[in-house]
Amino acid sequence: MMSESEALTIIAGGGTVPAYVAAAAVKAGRPVFVVGIKGEADPAIAAFPHEFLDWGQLGRLDEILSSQRGRDLVFVGSVRTRPDFRGISLDLATMRSLKDILAIVIGGDNDVLSGAIRFFEKRGMRVIGAHEVATDLVVAAGPLGRARAGRAERRDVETALRAARAIGAIDAGQAAVAVNGRIVALEAAEGTDAMLERVAALKAARRVKWSGRAGVLGKCAKPQQDLRVDMPTIGVKTIEAAIGLDLAGIAVEAGRVMIVDRAEAIRRADAAGLFIIGEDSPIGAPW
Amino acid sequence: MMSESEALTIIAGGGTVPAYVAAAAVKAGRPVFVVGIKGEADPAIAAFPHEFLDWGQLGRLDEILSSQRGRDLVFVGSVRTRPDFRGISLDLATMRSLKDILAIVIGGDNDVLSGAIRFFEKRGMRVIGAHEVATDLVVAAGPLGRARAGRAERRDVETALRAARAIGAIDAGQAAVAVNGRIVALEAAEGTDAMLERVAALKAARRVKWSGRAGVLGKCAKPQQDLRVDMPTIGVKTIEAAIGLDLAGIAVEAGRVMIVDRAEAIRRADAAGLFIIGEDSPIGAPW
Repeated sequence: MMSESEALTIIAGGGTVPAYVAAAAVKAGRPVFVVGIKGEADPAIAAFPHEFLDWGQLGRLDEILSSQRGRDLVFVGSVRTRPDFRGISLDLATMRSLKDILAIVIGGDNDVLSGAIRFFEKRGMRVIGAHEVATDLVVAAGPLGRARAGRAERRDVETALRAARAIGAIDAGQAAVAVNGRIVALEAAEGTDAMLERVAALKAARRVKWSGRAGVLGKCAKPQQDLRVDMPTIGVKTIEAAIGLDLAGIAVEAGRVMIVDRAEAIRRADAAGLFIIGEDSPIGAPW
Repeated sequence: MMSESEALTIIAGGGTVPAYVAAAAVKAGRPVFVVGIKGEADPAIAAFPHEFLDWGQLGRLDEILSSQRGRDLVFVGSVRTRPDFRGISLDLATMRSLKDILAIVIGGDNDVLSGAIRFFEKRGMRVIGAHEVATDLVVAAGPLGRARAGRAERRDVETALRAARAIGAIDAGQAAVAVNGRIVALEAAEGTDAMLERVAALKAARRVKWSGRAGVLGKCAKPQQDLRVDMPTIGVKTIEAAIGLDLAGIAVEAGRVMIVDRAEAIRRADAAGLFIIGEDSPIGAPW
């Protein structure tokens, strides 16, 4: 998939994944250059050839890209803050591409991301997915960790994934929660974390009820989602929220969802007896 | 649909609809008997032959039903409180049917309601919908009030209804919000009011953005929903929430959604320029 000697440019937002991806590339014999977004990127990226860029230095990005020996570009990591352009003076070239560049970091929907990919491809780069560099970021089919879904829990695995798939098909969201056969929450603009907080509030108010460990969080990629720049993700925070809710498990679409900080996530799931499973789902086939 | 001389028994929860339904029956020349749930039913039902029943007097219900001259039974109105059975002594007959009766008033999902219908049908009654007695409760195809959907707004009408239909098909919920072509919220266990509050919070946090009047609340019945006892409803509260959000309009499935307090609801929508429209949707056909 990648020519091993060609350099890889990584544009790094927050979290541990960018350094993880950089390390995976280096381990595969590939030189990397990491462009860290200031205020977002983890200091750990400094272990690799790198440069931190402020929002006001976006013009530098073009220079960096054209000086790279490789054409491959990876976007990875979270972007929490919006740029603050007060007091920043930009040259005309930067001004011209600013709108396109901003779309990458501000946006989140498919159109914006396709626009970003086109922007970099126009500059001769090829955008590839972080999971193509660090393949073990992706959840494969089968269980992760030690806990297993029982028979009653299998029904919630299927119900939650069917729901997540249905809302993906209408481009609304990626995740759903099913408890004892009933769909209790569907994700749209609020995101998975906020959806799980809502289920916790509904449970506290006894608007939804279950005793002991029950119910499943399902998460899928939308059929039309560009996995190179926008792959659904679960991680330690997701696992902790599921444990806090007394869910029985988490089921994700195999091959199309990332697990971040895998070892720690599985350790916590195992400690709590929460199952995590990747489920095969050929596009177009119902669960 | 109804034999006009036969008596109609109305089991009345809260709100103005039970008295409205009773008045519609009387106007059609049909005698009514209203059983008001204490603490829920509006005092206005006292204008009709009636009895208020406490949760502890559920045994009386069997007596009332068997003394009725007609077999037709309507459930209508909201039930907010859960029964408190502390200190209530029940006879054996009531105990035996208690579980069934409770299911009617506590539950909300289809299984529970079908159970309730079977319970009363076993006792010789025929459960009919409030909208079969007061047909103008139902939203017909076409606009209500003065405002109309523009061209951009038509897209959100279709997107919101398609989303509401998709989540109905998986038995998850009835309502969705679409703004400028994007689905921002899907309803499940939280209900329509809470979903609209969530959209307001997302808008306040600038997680979803629109300026001026835009976006549509769509609401449909689930394909499998028993409209006799569980018809989706909009009313003044829904209209006020939509106005507060600066939505452009509300679109509902024609013939399968009720509008409560119609005149007042339309008056407020007209004052704010909010459109309300009923959209035809043959079951099985996509929007």
